[in-house]
Amino acid sequence: MMLLRYGVMLKGQIFINNINKNFRQYRRLLELNCLFFSTSPCKMEDVKDIKYGPLPADSPYVKPFRLYYTQNGVEKNWDCLKVHDSVAIIIFNVTRKKLVLVKQFRPAVYYGIVSEEGDPNNIDYEKFPPKIGITLELCAGIVDKNKSLKEIAQEEVLEECGYDVPLDKIEEVLVYRSGVGVSSAVQSLFYCEVTDELRKNKGGGVDHEIIEIAEFSIEEIEEKMKPGNVHTSPPSFLFGILWFLTNKAPLYR
Amino acid sequence: MMLLRYGVMLKGQIFINNINKNFRQYRRLLELNCLFFSTSPCKMEDVKDIKYGPLPADSPYVKPFRLYYTQNGVEKNWDCLKVHDSVAIIIFNVTRKKLVLVKQFRPAVYYGIVSEEGDPNNIDYEKFPPKIGITLELCAGIVDKNKSLKEIAQEEVLEECGYDVPLDKIEEVLVYRSGVGVSSAVQSLFYCEVTDELRKNKGGGVDHEIIEIAEFSIEEIEEKMKPGNVHTSPPSFLFGILWFLTNKAPLYR
Repeated sequence: MMLLRYGVMLKGQIFINNINKNFRQYRRLLELNCLFFSTSPCKMEDVKDIKYGPLPADSPYVKPFRLYYTQNGVEKNWDCLKVHDSVAIIIFNVTRKKLVLVKQFRPAVYYGIVSEEGDPNNIDYEKFPPKIGITLELCAGIVDKNKSLKEIAQEEVLEECGYDVPLDKIEEVLVYRSGVGVSSAVQSLFYCEVTDELRKNKGGGVDHEIIEIAEFSIEEIEEKMKPGNVHTSPPSFLFGILWFLTNKAPLYR
Repeated sequence: MMLLRYGVMLKGQIFINNINKNFRQYRRLLELNCLFFSTSPCKMEDVKDIKYGPLPADSPYVKPFRLYYTQNGVEKNWDCLKVHDSVAIIIFNVTRKKLVLVKQFRPAVYYGIVSEEGDPNNIDYEKFPPKIGITLELCAGIVDKNKSLKEIAQEEVLEECGYDVPLDKIEEVLVYRSGVGVSSAVQSLFYCEVTDELRKNKGGGVDHEIIEIAEFSIEEIEEKMKPGNVHTSPPSFLFGILWFLTNKAPLYR
């Protein structure tokens, strides 16, 4: 759930943060309509007008700062970033023996690729089509509400992938720091098995999130883990997949 | 190698960035002396005077910005961070059948823990001893020089862990994005096997880095990967360990 993750400019009015609930529901309906019924479906790779500017001081998502300290008698400093804790869920559909993963356009990844080889101030969209910024990931979300981690995981599975999984079917895997160099939010990793009967909607995220479900058989995902492969996915995805292949896949081959 | 990763205040003079080579070598000698011969050895957990302030606009390590774009007709924005690419290396000592890992004090992790439960402006060091910010990780380093990734990996193995491993003994594992939500630098993961004969120095990092080598047997590391465990380590560590346990450990049991 990334309700407040971006500012939305609509009909000339900027809605940021405290968008009221009715409006959110209205947008949700629009989104669902778009996902289910539109003859011109939502296209996550339909991305344009990319430009960048300084981080506003009041960003609710990224709070950078410098930490000063003395270690073993030497004064040092380190640049850090406060970000939200998160949950991630490895989902396996046992009806069709498929891993349920998500794809989405990740601005940070797109910018990362463009800034390595191109000019981010003057993007050549032919050379850098927005689809290069689409990543394959575990279903995941930030912890930004007063619910248990398992409840937040349950909500993400429903919102992003459409499965209404009972709380007691969600297993804890491990808890770790999503990063240690710059940010160090906690990420809690879960595993759950779902069936086709638990599918309640098409998923795809809430509000203006555009998330696409991608299903992989055990053999297909093993192929992706072969040595020498290059991923746009994060290490938590690779760990989750390998954990699944090691601990759960043998039961379903 | 994190030569320029922090500013160092020594004898009232601030040395940041372009510290000349001779001075670096002098500091290196001091550091080696401290690591090898001192009767009061370097203590990574001897951390005090922790305070924090705003990120300076000219931070060479953390460059936050806001990306604006239009996706599927909706104007959006996303807060991002540009950080350095990196390498990480899974090291296995075949002489003693031990995984060679590193421990270090991570300011971002320490701050993360304190800010969750305490007051980072007025730290209670009894309640939050600096050792809670020490993480267990793979040997790793940032890509900040004009060398091949494998050469940078080789250098990190020598600097952090003291093994002079031949370039052709370093295997590529996978390449992925170290994060996708906020930053998205590339991390290249390698594997190498070392022997006691390849050990040339005590490791521990360069300049004022204080890195401690931690060795684990296959059984000890398996214990750490059990469900429900809580780590201060990042997901790249967990993936690297699980990759080792799956692909290499069976040859050495």
